[in-house]
Amino acid sequence: MSIAAVSFSANGRHYSTPDRPVVVVCLDGCADEYLDAASSRGLMPNLVRMSIEGFRCMARGALPSFTNVNNSSIVTGVPPSVHGIGGNFFYDSTTGQEVMMNSARYLRAGTILAAAAKAGRRVAVVTAKEKLRDIFAHELNGIAFSSEKAGLARTETHGIGDVEQLVGKPTPPIYSGEASLYVLEAGAALLRDRRADFLYLSTTDFIQHKFDPDSGGALEFYAGVDVQLGRLLEWGAVVGITADHGMNSKQHPDGSPNVLYLETLLVENFGPGFRVILPITDPYVVHHGALGSFAAVHVPSTASIADVGRWLMDLDGVTEVHTRASAARKLELPEDRIGDLAVLSARDVVLGRTPACHDLKAIEGGLRSHGGRYEEMVPLIVSRPLRREYLRKAACDPRNFDIFDLTINGPLVPDC
Amino acid sequence: MSIAAVSFSANGRHYSTPDRPVVVVCLDGCADEYLDAASSRGLMPNLVRMSIEGFRCMARGALPSFTNVNNSSIVTGVPPSVHGIGGNFFYDSTTGQEVMMNSARYLRAGTILAAAAKAGRRVAVVTAKEKLRDIFAHELNGIAFSSEKAGLARTETHGIGDVEQLVGKPTPPIYSGEASLYVLEAGAALLRDRRADFLYLSTTDFIQHKFDPDSGGALEFYAGVDVQLGRLLEWGAVVGITADHGMNSKQHPDGSPNVLYLETLLVENFGPGFRVILPITDPYVVHHGALGSFAAVHVPSTASIADVGRWLMDLDGVTEVHTRASAARKLELPEDRIGDLAVLSARDVVLGRTPACHDLKAIEGGLRSHGGRYEEMVPLIVSRPLRREYLRKAACDPRNFDIFDLTINGPLVPDC
Repeated sequence: MSIAAVSFSANGRHYSTPDRPVVVVCLDGCADEYLDAASSRGLMPNLVRMSIEGFRCMARGALPSFTNVNNSSIVTGVPPSVHGIGGNFFYDSTTGQEVMMNSARYLRAGTILAAAAKAGRRVAVVTAKEKLRDIFAHELNGIAFSSEKAGLARTETHGIGDVEQLVGKPTPPIYSGEASLYVLEAGAALLRDRRADFLYLSTTDFIQHKFDPDSGGALEFYAGVDVQLGRLLEWGAVVGITADHGMNSKQHPDGSPNVLYLETLLVENFGPGFRVILPITDPYVVHHGALGSFAAVHVPSTASIADVGRWLMDLDGVTEVHTRASAARKLELPEDRIGDLAVLSARDVVLGRTPACHDLKAIEGGLRSHGGRYEEMVPLIVSRPLRREYLRKAACDPRNFDIFDLTINGPLVPDC
Repeated sequence: MSIAAVSFSANGRHYSTPDRPVVVVCLDGCADEYLDAASSRGLMPNLVRMSIEGFRCMARGALPSFTNVNNSSIVTGVPPSVHGIGGNFFYDSTTGQEVMMNSARYLRAGTILAAAAKAGRRVAVVTAKEKLRDIFAHELNGIAFSSEKAGLARTETHGIGDVEQLVGKPTPPIYSGEASLYVLEAGAALLRDRRADFLYLSTTDFIQHKFDPDSGGALEFYAGVDVQLGRLLEWGAVVGITADHGMNSKQHPDGSPNVLYLETLLVENFGPGFRVILPITDPYVVHHGALGSFAAVHVPSTASIADVGRWLMDLDGVTEVHTRASAARKLELPEDRIGDLAVLSARDVVLGRTPACHDLKAIEGGLRSHGGRYEEMVPLIVSRPLRREYLRKAACDPRNFDIFDLTINGPLVPDC
């Protein structure tokens, strides 16, 4: 079956696809250091070839530097202020409810994936975490499944019913590097069998939370990633790679987590009624104990938002405090789904609610996490060289959510 | 002559040197992308070997991300709040004078170099820019010269009188890659001839302001750097490498500079009397037209500092605004040498005074610059593996000005 070179628009951007497979990969938690450590050791020959023959730069992600936020940006091509997903959940002060945003119900922008499918591309999206599938599958006429629930995918609901046969492996455990490698293997198999020609492959950051870039666990994982990148290229795809966020160690030199318990501190100083929302919180807390470098603070009417903001900014370990208006403008967040104040912490500091809210046993092996400014910059690689116009755009302040644009519209030679 | 394993303290840190040469290199403007681009192409085999056999990470520099500030931090091991050099110059509001800080007179902390020499090491410091020599040579009993004025070095004043013979080349032009390579060549020659065993080598960022990481000019330069790193290693040195700051493109997609003229904007909105200090300004403006991503603002008594701060923070392209107190604490700046407000701009935005103050002809080829938060993170490499205790420290929030500590005290095996 030949591949259609189609055109479509999504959220104000025009996409003209080549008549070859297009694959965008989001490597969850892939700080640039991981690529450096593995490629220095000769473990990523395909990535190195892509970066030499194609294009590589550092790109700025969306804030807070969390998975849902950035994956939503990547598949829509717009910041959270437009697509509406500013974290894993938010507190709706009108209803008094904490609302999980794992559902496409909260997505305010259509996806590039759905638009590509509508234009005639055979689209497949594979994610490690089931939680992201609903957003990725939003209005999508195509294939969408997670490696976490690979064995449960059904043709009627997922566009595919034989994932384990396709990959030749059983469903992997979610807390593993395999959960991510399975995503890439499935993508390569979909290309091989010509069951899709427009793919989004999104991994999980279990490995990155657990291992620093130089450690064996990380190096082995990235060597495995590179093998799959080679297969994607072998099947003729133009491949774009980026990450949702970086990853930093967030602990004291003795290995204990470096936490500011904001709700405790605020109640001690200003009295009760504060609600601290940690939008990293999700059902997968084994990674990080729900501790990241971003918090939303809802201030009770008994306290002054300005006073609380100044007080927070004065705390050691806090690097930025934004009001709702400033967070909407400067952090590109949806104004109606954030707190009165948005707080970012330092490279090695995480924000918590109260000690009782966090199970530190989950992170006894050490805390590596993300969410703040120091996990905002991520690598971006396209397997083909870019046209001059795109080189100029990419030289300004490229975003990780430009990756579909760069991969589809950017390359100098549409095909070869 | 054998090399003394000596111990000394500087600014509260203890240093126990090995009985082998110690060399710390500051690669001016070396964003990590430069190392990636060159090493991916096989042009930096020595750097790659160092990072595999030794230690590599990303380190946080001092703000503003300028050359004087960070070089002063590196040679003292402390942030600007302690050593006093918060920029190339400051406005002294008590005298009404703009004061250049190229002189050691403004340094409030002793250097590691002077302390090492006093303890018995034969110290040499080589800088590309003559402007830095006075700070580096502060109370130093040893060799100190610049490649810019290599031919003018005299034994009585510089501790060496035959630089051109030593290197075997004439003084290079300052606006060249050669000005930096000459620094490293001189360092290797000093080791070869056993004229020094404790070296600080600091290059200039002409290449980085001019070329992006993938371009031929940059790749050729880094290949040359790597040859010299190989020579330093060959002479038995433990080598530590870091950068003073990164480098980003600061222009619109059409190639024109992306400038916010703060003084013009402030006077239009609040009336006269504002003084905007751009601490990147120095005698070497060909690089950057005195445009960087940091500004200090002195507010006249006719305006409210808080109002002006809020108004500045609301400008597109401004990312952070700090009061004097907040800049002292959060940016680690010397409180008496900064303005009423400190302003940082976005990855692709520079801050200017008025259009008339800047000669944009100097940057007609495109503007790459630094000074802000997005040039704060830099690579750090030590040629030897670190001890567990240092690995733990380096895993938290390592700073580029920890480089002497990491290079001297960090290695697992003091010698081999």
